[in-house]
Amino acid sequence: MFGKNKGVYKLVLPTLESPRELERLSLAELDNLASEIREELCRLYDHRSVHFASNLGVVELCIALHTTFDFSWDRLIWDTGHQVYPHKLLTGRFNRFTTIRTKGGLMGFPNPEESEYDLMMTGHAGCSVGTILGLCCGDDLIAGSNKRHSVAVIGDGALSSGIVYEAMNHAGGLKKNLTVVLNDNKMSICPRVGGLSDHLDRLRMHPIYSRIKQKLHNFVDRTPIIGSSMDSFFGRFKNAIKAGLLGGMLFEELGFRYIGPIDGHNIARLQRFLRMARSLEEPVLLHIFTEKGRGFRPAEENPTAYHAPKPGKSGKLFPVSSITGSGSDSSSHFTPQSSLQSSFSVLPSQPQLTSFTEHVRDAIELLMQRNDRICVITAAMCQGNMLEPIRDRFPERFFDVGICESHAVVFAAGLAKAGMLPIVDIYSTFLQRSYDQLFQEVSLQNLPVILAIDRAGLAGPDGPTHHGVFDLGYLRPFPNFVLMAPADALDVEPMFCFAELLERPVAIRYPKAKATIVERNPEPIQLGKAEIIRNGYDGMIVVYGAFLETAVEAAKTLGKNLDGLGRVDVGVINARFAKPLDTVSILQPLREGKFLITFEEGMLIAGFGSAVLEAANNEQLDTRRFWRLGIPDHYVEHGERSELLDDLGLNEKQLVKVCREIMFG
Amino acid sequence: MFGKNKGVYKLVLPTLESPRELERLSLAELDNLASEIREELCRLYDHRSVHFASNLGVVELCIALHTTFDFSWDRLIWDTGHQVYPHKLLTGRFNRFTTIRTKGGLMGFPNPEESEYDLMMTGHAGCSVGTILGLCCGDDLIAGSNKRHSVAVIGDGALSSGIVYEAMNHAGGLKKNLTVVLNDNKMSICPRVGGLSDHLDRLRMHPIYSRIKQKLHNFVDRTPIIGSSMDSFFGRFKNAIKAGLLGGMLFEELGFRYIGPIDGHNIARLQRFLRMARSLEEPVLLHIFTEKGRGFRPAEENPTAYHAPKPGKSGKLFPVSSITGSGSDSSSHFTPQSSLQSSFSVLPSQPQLTSFTEHVRDAIELLMQRNDRICVITAAMCQGNMLEPIRDRFPERFFDVGICESHAVVFAAGLAKAGMLPIVDIYSTFLQRSYDQLFQEVSLQNLPVILAIDRAGLAGPDGPTHHGVFDLGYLRPFPNFVLMAPADALDVEPMFCFAELLERPVAIRYPKAKATIVERNPEPIQLGKAEIIRNGYDGMIVVYGAFLETAVEAAKTLGKNLDGLGRVDVGVINARFAKPLDTVSILQPLREGKFLITFEEGMLIAGFGSAVLEAANNEQLDTRRFWRLGIPDHYVEHGERSELLDDLGLNEKQLVKVCREIMFG
Repeated sequence: MFGKNKGVYKLVLPTLESPRELERLSLAELDNLASEIREELCRLYDHRSVHFASNLGVVELCIALHTTFDFSWDRLIWDTGHQVYPHKLLTGRFNRFTTIRTKGGLMGFPNPEESEYDLMMTGHAGCSVGTILGLCCGDDLIAGSNKRHSVAVIGDGALSSGIVYEAMNHAGGLKKNLTVVLNDNKMSICPRVGGLSDHLDRLRMHPIYSRIKQKLHNFVDRTPIIGSSMDSFFGRFKNAIKAGLLGGMLFEELGFRYIGPIDGHNIARLQRFLRMARSLEEPVLLHIFTEKGRGFRPAEENPTAYHAPKPGKSGKLFPVSSITGSGSDSSSHFTPQSSLQSSFSVLPSQPQLTSFTEHVRDAIELLMQRNDRICVITAAMCQGNMLEPIRDRFPERFFDVGICESHAVVFAAGLAKAGMLPIVDIYSTFLQRSYDQLFQEVSLQNLPVILAIDRAGLAGPDGPTHHGVFDLGYLRPFPNFVLMAPADALDVEPMFCFAELLERPVAIRYPKAKATIVERNPEPIQLGKAEIIRNGYDGMIVVYGAFLETAVEAAKTLGKNLDGLGRVDVGVINARFAKPLDTVSILQPLREGKFLITFEEGMLIAGFGSAVLEAANNEQLDTRRFWRLGIPDHYVEHGERSELLDDLGLNEKQLVKVCREIMFG
Repeated sequence: MFGKNKGVYKLVLPTLESPRELERLSLAELDNLASEIREELCRLYDHRSVHFASNLGVVELCIALHTTFDFSWDRLIWDTGHQVYPHKLLTGRFNRFTTIRTKGGLMGFPNPEESEYDLMMTGHAGCSVGTILGLCCGDDLIAGSNKRHSVAVIGDGALSSGIVYEAMNHAGGLKKNLTVVLNDNKMSICPRVGGLSDHLDRLRMHPIYSRIKQKLHNFVDRTPIIGSSMDSFFGRFKNAIKAGLLGGMLFEELGFRYIGPIDGHNIARLQRFLRMARSLEEPVLLHIFTEKGRGFRPAEENPTAYHAPKPGKSGKLFPVSSITGSGSDSSSHFTPQSSLQSSFSVLPSQPQLTSFTEHVRDAIELLMQRNDRICVITAAMCQGNMLEPIRDRFPERFFDVGICESHAVVFAAGLAKAGMLPIVDIYSTFLQRSYDQLFQEVSLQNLPVILAIDRAGLAGPDGPTHHGVFDLGYLRPFPNFVLMAPADALDVEPMFCFAELLERPVAIRYPKAKATIVERNPEPIQLGKAEIIRNGYDGMIVVYGAFLETAVEAAKTLGKNLDGLGRVDVGVINARFAKPLDTVSILQPLREGKFLITFEEGMLIAGFGSAVLEAANNEQLDTRRFWRLGIPDHYVEHGERSELLDDLGLNEKQLVKVCREIMFG
């Protein structure tokens, strides 16, 4: 173990250039390597907000995978790729590891541009099985006899996603040789929900499970995996399953061979079962149990809090001895290096700013308090959307459907049809999975479903899989929808109260950001009515969403004669609605020959600016003095939101520059 | 039976004003009613292209449902609502039944505007379970003790859709009292695929199934459904299931009580099991077997061909005696009325026109013939996309994934990553289910997946659930995508050949229409290059897609001095690309002060016209002489495509009118 050998033990991780070098390591050395990886993860977590607990859980699995397969040739897809940190450490990225989730640094998800070992950039859950099936079929058509093996690793949380089922059903029908490793840590991002969760619990809890399991493990450990004894073993294995003793029928019924559950922290056993799965000419589901947060006791005890915690929490809250050991002997603990200890410094406390997420949560709580029809639906994002107080206070009207965004919206439509007023609280990027349900179940039926679209805009360090920049483009063309965006904290509660009264589909988008307060006497919310914050003689900046303060600051700056060229007198409008649009107020500058700028945190194509442009064109207005600022036609990398906005020129400086260029050339 | 009693038997169906009146009918009379419904269906089918075979299969189920529940209070959702015809006949719509699928007439799907018995407009598969769960939860929160019962009817084809699994998983966790009737006719629209299909087959085929089934049925038929004997019965029932004798484990594992399979053509038995399901305080899956096409022998024998056949086929191809009887005695046949016989007239044969669908199919076949990397994926639309010849010729490179549009795209991405060139052949409206996968798996990874988007535009009699009018709005904002639309038959093959070379995401959209040929010497396809069909002194019409002929005809008409006001010399551009857009050619009229009109079969919001508008704005061009023609911000009803286009003014007449108004005021 790492700690015990301090001073004599030579670290392996820093010297690893390729996972192929793992071949030369003994099992004991691999166990040590697991400890090294855990220490790296703890060190990283101590510095930065990262996906933490899930990565601690897959250390042994990752080692077993890379020592059983050669993924420079074989295929490996990590579902919901935030569990990919150990994989990054093992595939030549140790030296850059501390840059993870920083701008220009490693991405927090698999990234094909970083390594040949990362096949797909995966951030949304559940697509691994379909992707690996496609890879497998493609390889069969192309590679022929030089067989590549195909492995997908999926968490039990992602398993509730319908697309997994679609893919497993297809794979089960095609009978391809592929392996799906079900990494069962009994958690989604929050505790998982649904019938399937009970099913997995039964697999774990069945009274005779542990005895049978031990017996089978002994049997597997003894049985050579060759020819007829293999068949015979599997005959008995399958019969045991079929008899309902071990479960897994769900997967068997879909056409998968179910193997498990086995201990996901035992490298040798994992290797053995992975080899077994590899050798079977059919789809295999290998069910392994892991502990989310494994090796770091606070995270073991509260994995939800440690899913993606704020940095430095460990040092402040827990003694060093809370870091537990890894490897097959789960009772052993290791002592961290001094470097790790020294990084446990207490960070200066920052002023507590209130996020849009919290304001929205509070507004929802207010509505629920006074209106029994209001209920809330989350798709496993109770924590991210900070809904715990609502869950605890209104358990009957709070529904966590698991990672099932499509279902979340259909379910909401059913609730609305029954007379309820459901609020689907969801990230913009994940709402994309409900596109067709937003169309058929909500917009077409004109049902009063309220979408609280969180993380609408740049999601920051999570990067392109998580940026929520398309929602305006995909919602605008749907008839019946009312689309709103609060400009600041003052807009949030009134907008939700207004949405409550509309009795039709509503979407309210807001970014992952603190909600500023733009000093004013806010006008009440009226359907399709913008709020004129200030008038301007030269032109107007129209903001849809949280850039209002930026625009107001820019207007102030422009009011100064900065360099002798002169002042620019620019007004600011808080659009509030993208649909219906306040064409009277917003287009007025164009009618008067003033310049007009729209300013939004979303794609320019089909975005808010396009809505204004369409409206101007509907009135056959001259649009030569109209400029649209937003996100151009490419994916935006990861980094702090403010860094990314600066890169894109979505800040006060650029706004000032554009206005001055318009006026002074 | 109807036929036997001709002359004495009084028809019931025409007198039915509400399903409540079914209460007074005896079982024998209900059987007669089933025959009447079948005759109505055959009569209808003889006149018009309708969903046929599926409706013949659910006649008895529909009667059993309406005699067991009161759906003016209880909740009923028909999944993939084209099986809703018997339901329409029983819920006061007999008199308007012949208007089905005609403009202004009944819709071919459930429609809340027609009847209180139609709760949701459902055309896309799989959403019934989530909707009914939402209704059930909402009713529990609102209705309190005055309990409504909740029933969803879903076909086994729709069961492969992931959203069903998401909803069942959630329902299984919530343990609500609701009933999902699995209408298992062993078919999707095409024969179903995947592991689940094997599972359902096992339920049917199990060697001891028939004996056990008979025994259980006898037992159920004898057992009074009350109190403790109920528990005891279900104890035994469940044990029997758990022992794997009857199967259904998949549903049980998701938290559902599985009951079945039972004969779906026996009204009394259906009623009995529905009552049983109703009484259970947990989610129940009632598995029934039906025959698609039941009662009409040609349809029984070839249900795929009779899913939605061309009208009048029965009279031409099959003797009258091919109409088989209904009711519990499946061997009985009935003789149709003379009115039915008289409508068996042979229709005049129409000239065979070639659809875009066929041209695309031929282009794909050509590519597959010469390029081993090309493969094709369909989501149960082999027939609709006319892919049978490809399936038969290239079985290894043809994948029918079932009704799993999300998976279809993920699977394609996997194939592409492996080096294949997959073509996903799919309806525009169903591609909506792949929105998030188009984002993450295709666009973000920049993989060479080619989307052949069929039914892009107005789908005709299927109505708003099937119109494909949003695709341009949802695809345009995705980076990396190339978007094309053939203007006529001559564009189809060159576009697919061009797409083959791009090695990036491509979408090619085309409507459900015959492909005209616009006489010209077509220019070769070049990336982002439009084709100028004719120049015009006064203005330009830019067409994206199949309206090219209409535009050319309009230009010819405008060239005549119709009423003394003068000629309009208007040019025509075949845009070919929506992304990248040929800004050089398309914006030239604006630069020259000419008028510009875009003309498309899609939503105006965020559509092709908006793309041109955005491009013009990017160049700060004057757009006062730019008009966009397309579909305004509302849902379009059902009817013939040409009727709907006329209503929307998307025809030559309106185009001429607009141009003349621009020129002459």
